[in-house]
Amino acid sequence: MGWFTKDIATMDDLFVHQLQDVYYAENQIRKALPDMIEKATDPALKQGFQTHLQETEGQIVRLKQVFRQHGVEEKGVTCPAIDGILKEADEVAGEIEDKQVLDAALIAAAQAVEHYEITRYGTLVAWAKQLGRDDCAALLKQNLDEEAATDAKLTKLATSGINRKAA
Amino acid sequence: MGWFTKDIATMDDLFVHQLQDVYYAENQIRKALPDMIEKATDPALKQGFQTHLQETEGQIVRLKQVFRQHGVEEKGVTCPAIDGILKEADEVAGEIEDKQVLDAALIAAAQAVEHYEITRYGTLVAWAKQLGRDDCAALLKQNLDEEAATDAKLTKLATSGINRKAA
Repeated sequence: MGWFTKDIATMDDLFVHQLQDVYYAENQIRKALPDMIEKATDPALKQGFQTHLQETEGQIVRLKQVFRQHGVEEKGVTCPAIDGILKEADEVAGEIEDKQVLDAALIAAAQAVEHYEITRYGTLVAWAKQLGRDDCAALLKQNLDEEAATDAKLTKLATSGINRKAA
Repeated sequence: MGWFTKDIATMDDLFVHQLQDVYYAENQIRKALPDMIEKATDPALKQGFQTHLQETEGQIVRLKQVFRQHGVEEKGVTCPAIDGILKEADEVAGEIEDKQVLDAALIAAAQAVEHYEITRYGTLVAWAKQLGRDDCAALLKQNLDEEAATDAKLTKLATSGINRKAA
């Protein structure tokens, strides 16, 4: 999460730092998706990434709302986890020649991103509720549900044809 | 995944590289867990991490079997994703003073690890089946199921008391 952890004394501090972590992550994902859209060959996959780019922009808007509701400055903290996940995705996206193998690798990379977001939003929703911030929890839950739906769509794409074509 | 992606021409290559990625990840997790066990305060959390260390050792044994069954050398490739996730976990584990806030942060870190493994094993099971390697898929599915069960246990711990005590 790249935070200065000595600053974390309370659950509220931990919540805010996790929020900054996922805010950074969403912004990095927004930057990474156009390249994944360009590399994807399968039209349904390309469209799926395009849709997720729009969703990601909406999720960033919701995170800004959460910062405001909670009365803290909106900012990100460098998150080595998402940087590592996207680094792997980028290595794959740029290098595999076979288009169908590339599509399969892109799906796997995108699912790693989704799972990272699912775990972080799951944690944030739980912490928001425990801090009595049901308003924040409701917004974060919307992001969580979107990420889970995207992951399910990717699984469907993977198992319904793209991987089979590549194998 | 840290692989030399130019070497990935086929789905079989992609499968083997993903296997090497998760093999590296499991070995890094095995090295990281003793520190998390030591830092955890809540007895149920400490015990949960202890159990997961034993499971991780069993999962590594299964991965060695998969390498053998598939007829490839057992080895890992550096995986920036798990390195980033564990770097975050380590930053948290070493620095938060309040024991209950630390437990909450440790659970969140462990769930990020579990979700990384869930997504990678999910992908590997699908690819093994598509490659006609049902024998490999069966072993990988056992690891997947264990990771999912661990994640569910961590959610239960988080929502049943540790986070509430910290808030």
